[in-house]
Order: sequence, then structure tokens, then C-alpha cells
Amino acid sequence: MSDPSLVPFFRPTGVAIIGASHDPNKLGYGLAYNLVSCGYSGAVHYVNPRGGKLFGQLIYPSIKDVPDPVDLAVILTPPATVPQTLADCGERGIRAAIVSSGGFRETGPEGAALEAECLRIARQNGIRFIGPNCVGIADTHLPLDTTFLPPPGAPKGEIAFISHSGAICAAVNDWMRGQGIGLSSLISLGNQADIHEMDMLEPVSADPHTRVLTLYLEGFSSGRQFVERAREAAVRKPVIALKVGRFESGKRAAASHTGALAGADSAVDAAFLQAGVLRAATTEEMFQWARALAWCPLPRGKNVAVLTNAGGPGVTASDALELEGLRMANLSGRTLEKLGSILPPAASLHNPIDMLASANPEHYASCLTALLADPGVDMVMIIFPAPPMFSAGAVARATIPIIQAADKPVVVALMGDKLVQEAAEHYRAARVPEYRFAEGAASALGALSRRAESLARLADRPLRCEDVDREKAARILAGCPAGAGLDPDAALELLEAYGIRTLRLRLATSREEAVRIAGELGYPVVLKVASPEISHKSDVGGVALDLPDPEAVGEAYDGVLARARAARPEARLEGVHVQRMLPAGQDVIAGVVRDPSFGPVAMFGSGGVEVEGLKDVAFGLAPLYPADLARMLGGTWAGRKLKGYRSIPAVDEAAAQDALVRMAQLAADFPQLAEIEINPLRVLPVGQGAWAVDVRGKISG
Amino acid sequence: MSDPSLVPFFRPTGVAIIGASHDPNKLGYGLAYNLVSCGYSGAVHYVNPRGGKLFGQLIYPSIKDVPDPVDLAVILTPPATVPQTLADCGERGIRAAIVSSGGFRETGPEGAALEAECLRIARQNGIRFIGPNCVGIADTHLPLDTTFLPPPGAPKGEIAFISHSGAICAAVNDWMRGQGIGLSSLISLGNQADIHEMDMLEPVSADPHTRVLTLYLEGFSSGRQFVERAREAAVRKPVIALKVGRFESGKRAAASHTGALAGADSAVDAAFLQAGVLRAATTEEMFQWARALAWCPLPRGKNVAVLTNAGGPGVTASDALELEGLRMANLSGRTLEKLGSILPPAASLHNPIDMLASANPEHYASCLTALLADPGVDMVMIIFPAPPMFSAGAVARATIPIIQAADKPVVVALMGDKLVQEAAEHYRAARVPEYRFAEGAASALGALSRRAESLARLADRPLRCEDVDREKAARILAGCPAGAGLDPDAALELLEAYGIRTLRLRLATSREEAVRIAGELGYPVVLKVASPEISHKSDVGGVALDLPDPEAVGEAYDGVLARARAARPEARLEGVHVQRMLPAGQDVIAGVVRDPSFGPVAMFGSGGVEVEGLKDVAFGLAPLYPADLARMLGGTWAGRKLKGYRSIPAVDEAAAQDALVRMAQLAADFPQLAEIEINPLRVLPVGQGAWAVDVRGKISG
Repeated sequence: MSDPSLVPFFRPTGVAIIGASHDPNKLGYGLAYNLVSCGYSGAVHYVNPRGGKLFGQLIYPSIKDVPDPVDLAVILTPPATVPQTLADCGERGIRAAIVSSGGFRETGPEGAALEAECLRIARQNGIRFIGPNCVGIADTHLPLDTTFLPPPGAPKGEIAFISHSGAICAAVNDWMRGQGIGLSSLISLGNQADIHEMDMLEPVSADPHTRVLTLYLEGFSSGRQFVERAREAAVRKPVIALKVGRFESGKRAAASHTGALAGADSAVDAAFLQAGVLRAATTEEMFQWARALAWCPLPRGKNVAVLTNAGGPGVTASDALELEGLRMANLSGRTLEKLGSILPPAASLHNPIDMLASANPEHYASCLTALLADPGVDMVMIIFPAPPMFSAGAVARATIPIIQAADKPVVVALMGDKLVQEAAEHYRAARVPEYRFAEGAASALGALSRRAESLARLADRPLRCEDVDREKAARILAGCPAGAGLDPDAALELLEAYGIRTLRLRLATSREEAVRIAGELGYPVVLKVASPEISHKSDVGGVALDLPDPEAVGEAYDGVLARARAARPEARLEGVHVQRMLPAGQDVIAGVVRDPSFGPVAMFGSGGVEVEGLKDVAFGLAPLYPADLARMLGGTWAGRKLKGYRSIPAVDEAAAQDALVRMAQLAADFPQLAEIEINPLRVLPVGQGAWAVDVRGKISG
Repeated sequence: MSDPSLVPFFRPTGVAIIGASHDPNKLGYGLAYNLVSCGYSGAVHYVNPRGGKLFGQLIYPSIKDVPDPVDLAVILTPPATVPQTLADCGERGIRAAIVSSGGFRETGPEGAALEAECLRIARQNGIRFIGPNCVGIADTHLPLDTTFLPPPGAPKGEIAFISHSGAICAAVNDWMRGQGIGLSSLISLGNQADIHEMDMLEPVSADPHTRVLTLYLEGFSSGRQFVERAREAAVRKPVIALKVGRFESGKRAAASHTGALAGADSAVDAAFLQAGVLRAATTEEMFQWARALAWCPLPRGKNVAVLTNAGGPGVTASDALELEGLRMANLSGRTLEKLGSILPPAASLHNPIDMLASANPEHYASCLTALLADPGVDMVMIIFPAPPMFSAGAVARATIPIIQAADKPVVVALMGDKLVQEAAEHYRAARVPEYRFAEGAASALGALSRRAESLARLADRPLRCEDVDREKAARILAGCPAGAGLDPDAALELLEAYGIRTLRLRLATSREEAVRIAGELGYPVVLKVASPEISHKSDVGGVALDLPDPEAVGEAYDGVLARARAARPEARLEGVHVQRMLPAGQDVIAGVVRDPSFGPVAMFGSGGVEVEGLKDVAFGLAPLYPADLARMLGGTWAGRKLKGYRSIPAVDEAAAQDALVRMAQLAADFPQLAEIEINPLRVLPVGQGAWAVDVRGKISG
């Protein structure tokens, strides 16, 4: 454990329960009961000013009276007493506390002040604490149980659960037992006055009894630190998170398309992808994935063989696997031959393999062996309702040794309830993940496959271009007023400093000057109204394209200004920008916006005026990793068609990627850059590069 | 029941089991055991050539020996004997049979021939039959159980299950008991030689004990008839279907974009929407929806109040409800006041209502009453893990009378396992749907809401325009060769006969003729290569736009032909089509393709060369209903932006709808029209109509 201040939470030598009670209706009784009955091997002390005895042991009137060893206090006293109790703990030499009491920030401003006071006292005394307003923590292997949840405690297992919600802890603690899966540890974080979810990632991932980390998250105290630490944890163990509050923040008021499109949830998605965290959509999904990730080897590819005794479940499985992005394995001739020698002629050997309702346990075992031996099979799903002639338990017993010896994942869909109960128990005992229907089993295989892919990417480094002029960019930004839009010239210069090609934009303040500049740049040219107050220029008729000669430029100069003035009479018009008109290519949008939790988030996709309507965009945390780039281009139509599509010629995809990487790097290097967006980035035919035609930016206020 | 030939399956006076066995390892024993022990009140007869006794009753050597009453035979004899057995049944006067034996079509060509023979004999004898290769049927209320599934039989309930897969029947029969929901009837259809899923919709929906129909479908024997009958059934009762084999048929080889995009699964989606069938994604989802639809009144709107005792579950519920398209209800001042008077000051009255962990059963009951009384609340979700101080069962007992008296749906998320078991049992007995987590409860409310919307639309009639010239269209089509692409002129004439405005297209076979025609039409014009073998003209450079004068037309004539010849040297070029160039507007695609199951399926969306890449399209069965039209326009960016978007001006949306309706009507009226596609349909500014610029069609081969 790299942070020694957290050690007492994970390996306490003695625990004092402050607020222990002998009234069985009080949480202070439940907590004491759980700690005593869990089998914790360290010292247990009770503290309550009323004194008395509990479970045959003296209750001390104050924490100061508690003898050694004691290095963890669990506080369950009225909220107003907690600051003093923490101070007393400090005096007693205790440096770790769990504040289970409620009545703090969650109740309003007074509670928040009390919570701040707790934090102040804790800092003063060098105390780290979990909570307040939490359920406590438990470790089923140590064992330790400092929760006040109704018994029995969590079933022992390999899944760690870290949660922002105490109620979900209570539910999961109870629910998992029925599911036949268990917890290695349970950590309820409560209000997180001191210790946050990200602080727990390192110590929990280091726990040898934990094979998978699961997180229930309502937010992030520091998104970037979360990503860093989650990435470190994910290198060791699979991390799955359920992030709720998806729709809470809604859209931010933003000057750019990127800002309008980058909802908080896109940033979470981008962050989890970069951190190697698998994002579950529901609580059940999270734990059903965890079951497979805890118990199965990772697949080497995406090819699945499905072994069943009927047609329907096989089709259901094929559908579900395809939705997961997996493939039905093509079996080798040798495998087909082997299956043919095992099964009756009417069986269907084509994957999904339908052994027919007559299949016996030996059929399952021999076919499974044949499938696992096929190098074209990366994973196997076995599906069966209770076979008409045999017990499901017998099928489980016949297949378990083969599954345990395999280096490929095998999951089981046991269709039914009572008739498959015995089989379910055998599989659970043998640590083989089983689900009630093929869809759940397919979802688990999908998670295994995504984990394998994600793990392979965790060695990647962020993409950085070295040929950037960071000092020049810093100088340009230093000259820009805070809280305002970037001057268009400065924005272009900024991009150039980072090696992005731009179209020179020149300001004309009169018709004559516009014509003169156009002559210098060469025809055809584009005119755009120059006004720091108008960000969407084409919306106000403020753009004139493809002007072939001086006469057209002159006319357009007057027209652009007149239309802009009519549409936005209050806006200050500085004149018109003149720009060389680029040859045809593909126009895309590339932007970066600053998310309040995760900092710079880059966006790529279809640009133009329809960008927000079409929503053909993808996001990645800046700076970008190779996987982000691949996903942002592969996940958008704008990105896919860079390679050419039917009559649309291929363009310089590498140049588009390069520009995106550079812009993300720029935003990551300069936190004061609140937003920057190239729209359009014109990607020219292969070899001719990508050009920033228009750029908008904003400096943080 | 409108089909009297099906009556013996639903109300048999006597059942004969042909192939009954006294060997407990045989299915013929299991079947007899189930029928006898289910409590069936009619006569039960056993037939087996070996004779003997079973359950104290004589086994007849032949069906011919069986005395009255007998009107249903269940056949479980070796496959080769089945045709003769059916003939014997006919001779005995039995007109209804369930052929449970396997060994038919599912085993290959020989089995298929045997199956055809069964059908022939059955028809000859006026026998209707279910199967072969099925599990049988059961009715828990009659009661009747002719399945050979391992006991116990299905739990009694209100959900009918009709299935193409016997294995899923076996699984569901067992699984539902553990879920605390029950079946009214179970129908395993097997190979459907005679009776198909669509035949069962009417009698099952007429069953007074059935409140919801659930279907597991692997295909459709006649998609259109299925839609008609499912729509009739859905008027009476909610119908939920799980359709598997989504990816089986893949993309068809097609000449049009519509054909390439209209996968079989889009047609199923469109068909279910029109039929009022709710489509479930997984087996579990289907039955969790069915539980709510069987037990709850339908909501009058989409506003949900969430009542819970913690923060986390409330946030999880909000997320899940938003994903379902539902809204968090805004509570009235009066409701807030009432809640405030019930709950402690620290409780959060803002929906989701967090009553805090201290909430007792009376809090739940009083708050629930207040929420149900709020006219702004259409549904309520109650969520709780076992409350720390009270039993979950007590909360259930306190809330059940209120839920039962309400005319709004209330669902419960009971988070946990053992600690909520008692509560689950109370709710199940009271017919209150309960789920393990908020996500499942939200999914159920989503299904209730969609059912309410769907039911409201079932009174709609398909959209038809009366001012069409059907005879003219018939004449045009009669002149078109089968299996070939429609002549462009004929295609335009066809659209005109149905009242769709088109651009006159005129063939020029020489440069001079092109210039002359352009002069007659008026400039600017468009030239398009004329070749029946080239369907995607712009792909081969075969289109020249916006030609302003005779010189440009002349040049373009040569260019278009030269490029087309270079790209497709084998194609026959007839010359060039000359067309008036329309003013600017919005271009969309509108097409119809013929699905092998469901017939004409209309498509609408973003057209142009990128149509297949962008996939901004939506589908509806032709002829279209008002709801289809709303969904196809509202569900695509191409449709939404017809109303205008930022600098894109609004266009004639009504004209676009009208053209789509007319084209769908045309395709529905003429089955020989295999495909027809307008690409683009240019939608002009409001009042100026929508024009078919280019059209392609194909006559069935």
C-alpha cells in the first residue's frame, strides 16, 4: 500500500466502536454485533459515555480510556459530538476513523459546516477518515466488518465494491448472497469529506483477495486523478464502474459546437475508456460481469462457440453475441469431425451446436473438450434448460473438470429455476460463471472480451508531437484577455504554433481593402464577417464563398456586412476577413472543451452547420491515446469516410489525425484554453494535408 | 373463438395420449403424469400398442378403441408412425392433435418429407395439429397440461406464452416459479406444419384468464397476417414479443439504397410498431414487462414520482427513467407541503423523494398516498433496500392497500435478497410488480407507458390518398418487363399517377438534341447518363449539375458519356437524360422495398451518395399509419430539419409527408413493384411542394 495513512482501514490492529450500544434497536448495537461475529482477530473496544457492558466486555466512557492495541475508530455518535470525538481520537493517538454518523452535508448548510469542522479537526490531528454518513467497511478475508448492515454479512468472495451510496451497499450485501457470488471487501464512502473513491483504488487493487474492483459512483472529486489511479488499478485488476447521474448536469452554455455537444456523460465515457474502466449500465450487469472477470481467463480473440441442446437458445445466443460485437466461431474440419463422431446424425454441428434434447452429460463433456481444442474458438458458452432425461446437476458435474482445466473462458446459461438449482450450486462452487439466460452469458463474454482489449491498450502512452512551439503558444495566450473569445488571428497563430496548417485570414475594413487583399491572396477567396460577438457566422449570412474576381469580392463585402448588421444589430462589426478558398476535400470538426471533472475533452466528427443536429461526433480525453484516435475516427461517419466511400474520394486521413492530436495536445498543455474548435478542418486529397479553415476559442474567465 | 377448428386445443372434452408409457424414463410417462396430476377435468385416455395399465387405467392398443369423450389426441410415437396415427385419429373422429414426436423437418430432407406427409393426411382427415417436434400446450386455469416437461407444471398466472422453441418453454416453465409470476397458458408450436403462431393470437387473446400475451418468435410464416392478427389481439391485451434471429438474413442484394439498408430486423421493428406489439430485447425483459402489464393500470402520462429512503437509488432511478423516455414528475406545491408535514426536515422532498434511512412503514404509506393524489404524477416507483430499523415486509404491508386502491401504476424496486424476501412475497400475492433494482422497475414503467401510447394508436387507420390514378399506374406497370429495373420515364409517370410531383426527364441521344431539349426546359439543367444498367449514376461520374447555357450542356453531354463508358465499359449507354434544375431545398430519400415476410417496407431519411454510410433512415410498413409517419420524420435528422434548423430554412414538410404516403400507398397497391426509391426527393420552401428528382424502381422477377 503506497499511502501508509490508509493502512489502519485495511489491517487494523484494534478497532474502537464509539457509540456502541446494548440496545438491539440501535445501529450501535448492530455495528458491534457485526464486528464481533465476523471473526475479526484484532482487539475490539466499545465506547459509550453511559458505560456498561456489551457482549461480556466493558464499555469505556471515553476513547481516551481505551487500551492498546487500537488504531481504527468507528464513530456512530450524534453529529454534533463528532468533531470533539475526532479530537479525542487524535489525543488517544488514533489516526484513522470511519464516521458512520449521519446529519452532515446531506442535511443542508448547518450540516455542511459541521462536516467542514470535522475535516479541520481531523487534519489538525493527522487523522484520515471515511464518511461521514457512510455504512462502514468490510473485508471478508481479513475478516473485518465495521458496517451496521443487518446480518448476515457479505458472502466471502473475490469482488471488491466501493460505493458512494450506502443504500446500494446494503442492497448489494444482501443481494449477492442469493446470486452465489461474494465480496472481498465493501467500502461505503459516504460524504467523502476526507477520503474519496480515487484514494481507495490503489489499496483495494493491491489486495490479493480481490480479483475485480466494482465501483458505484455518483461523481468525481477529481476526474483527472481518478483516471490516473483507475488506469493504474486497471493494469492490475479489472475495474467496472456504474456511474449514475448521467443526465444531471445537462448541457453547458458554450460558445462552440464542441461545448454544446460534450455533455458530462460523454466525458465520463471518454475518461473510463482511457482509464481502462468497463462501464456497466445497471447494477446487475456490473456484478454479472464481475462474476466472469473474477473467475475466467481472458479470451485471446472474439470467436465464440455455443454448445446447447436445442435450437431456440442457440439463436438467442447468436443474436446476443452479435450485439456484443463478438463472432460465432467457424469450427475447424477436425472439430466438426469430432462432434460428428460424438453426436447423433440429426444434431446440428454448425455453430451454435445443437446436440438435440437427447444430449447426455457425456455428450456435453466430449463436445466441450472438442470445442476448447479448436484454435478458432476463443470462448465457449454452454446453454441448457434442464435436459428432459438427465439432471442439470449431472451436466454440471461432467463439464466442470473440463472448464477448470481450460485456458479459455467458458460461461454457462442455465435456463430455469428449481430444476437447475443443483447445477448452479455446482458451478458456483467450482467458480464457473452461470447465468439464467443466454443474453446474460453473452453480456459476460462481451465484458471479458472488452477487458482483454482494454488491458492490451493500458501499456500505450499518450500521443505527443514534439515539433510544437510551446513558448510561442504561451506568448499568444498570455496576450489574450481572460473570459473572452480568442481573437481569430490569435487562434490561427496558436494552431500554427502547434503545427496545424491554417488558412491565413486577413482583416479588411473597407471594400477597397478587401479587393486588394483578395488580389494578394489569389482567387477564389472567401469573405467572413469580422465580429468577436458573432460566433456562428453563417447563421447570420455573414459568409460568402468562392468569390472568383474583384467585382464579386466588392459586392460580397457590402452584402456580408449588411446581412450581419440586419441579423445582429447590436453586434460590433470590425469589417470582413478575407481568406483563400481551399480546393474541395472533406470538412470535419475538431474541438476541445474543458469538462469540469475531467479537463480537456476532444471532439471529432461531422462539422458544418448541422453538427449539433446530426450528432456524428465522438469524444476522447486530451491528450489522446492511440485507442482514442482509432475510436474517434472509426466511431464517426466523418472519420470513416476519410478513407473514401463510393464516389467520395479518399482524403489525407493521417493529416486529419495529426491535426486532432496536435489540438488535443495544445488544450492539454494550456489549462487556460477553455474551448478551441476548428470548424471546418478541411481534409484535402492524400498528401495535401488538413487545413484549419475556421477556428474559435475561448480563454477561461 | 372465431376458428371453431381450434376449440379442442383450448377446451378439450377428452384427451388421448398416443404413446403413453408406464416407463418413468420415457416422455410418454411424463406426459401422462402431467395430464393426470394437473387436475384436468375431462376424460383422459392412454394408447399404446403394448397395452397394459397406467395410473390404474387401461391402456388401449389403438386410438380407434378409445371411448367417448375424446376430441384431442397427443401423439408421442416414433416419427414414422405419425402419419398413420393421424389417419387413425381421423377415422376415430378426432379433429385436433398435438404431435409432440420429433424427427421431422428439423432432422433434414427425409424428416421434411415425413412432415409433409403428416400435413397431407391431416388435411385429408380435416385434422388441425400443433407440432410436430413440440413440447405441448398447457392451460393453468382450465386446467390442462399436455406437456412432457419435468414437474412441477407452470405456476398459475395471467401471462400466456406462445413459443417457437420448446427449450425456451421448458426454461420459462421452471424459471417463472422462482420469479413469482405465473402463466395462464403455454403453447409450444414446434415445426408449425399446420398451426402457426399467428393462428394462436385470436384464441389466446380471447382467454379471460390471460392478461398479457408473450411470444418467442424465430420467424413469421406470413408477416402481413401476423401483423393484422397481432394488431387485433393488441387491441384486447398487451402483446410482447422476443424476436430472435436478428442478424440471420443479413443484407439482401438490392439495386436501391432502401434495399441495402432495409435489413430484415428493421422490417420486424416496423411491423411490431404497426401491430402494437412491444418488442423485448431479452427473455427476462419480456417477462418483467409482462408482470407489470398484467398487474398495473396503464399510466395517463409519462411523469414518474420516485419514493425512496436513500440518495443513491433515487439517482439510479432518475437515470434509468430518462433512458426509458419518461420524466421525473414535478410535484405540486400541495404535495410538497404534505410530504414536508410527514417527513423530517433533512429529507429531500424534490423528486426523487429521499425520506432518509429512518423512514418507517407509515412514512412510506403516507408519502405514497400524497404522491398518488398529485395530478402531475402518472406513475410511482417505490425503492428500498431493507430499511435499517424496520422489516421490508412491514413496508410492503403498509403500502399494498394504497397501491391496490390506486388507478395509477406503482412498481417496487426491492433491493436485496433474503432481507426483502418477505416483502417480495407480500407484493407478489397482492399482484404488485417488484424488481430487484431500480433499473428493472424503470424498464417496466417504460413498457407500461409504451403500451398506453401504442393502445391509443390502435384505432388509427392507414393513410390513403384518394386522388390517385390506380388504373394508370396498373397500365404503366403492365408495360414493364418482370425482373428488370423500371424504365426511368415509366418510373416518373408511375409517381405522377399517384400524385407525386416529378421533374420531367427527357432523353437526348446526341449532343445537339441535349442542347435543344435544355432550351425547351429552360436553364439551368442537369444531365444524367441514360443506362438501365447503371443505377448509381453519380458513382460513375454520370451526372452533371447546374448547367447554365448551351455550351455547358454540350460539353457535359460528352463528359458524362465518356466517364460512364470508362467506369462501366460493359454497360449499354442510351444517351443522356436532360432535366430542369430545381431551386435549393432539402434533399431526402424516400423508398420502398419488399420484405420477404412483411411485404412493402417504406424508408425515409438522409439521401445522397452517403445514405448507406450515414444510416440516417427510418422504416415503416406500407401503407403507412399516422404514427409511422411521425416516427419516420421525427426519428431521422433528415425529417427533423425539414422544420428548419439554425441557418437552414424550413421547407415544405407537409409535402414531404404527402410524397412518402403516396409512394408507400403505390407500393402497397402493386405487389409486383419490388422496389421503388426517390433519391433525392427535393423538398422546396413551404408551399412549393416536394419533387422527385430521381427515381429508381424494379419489377419482381
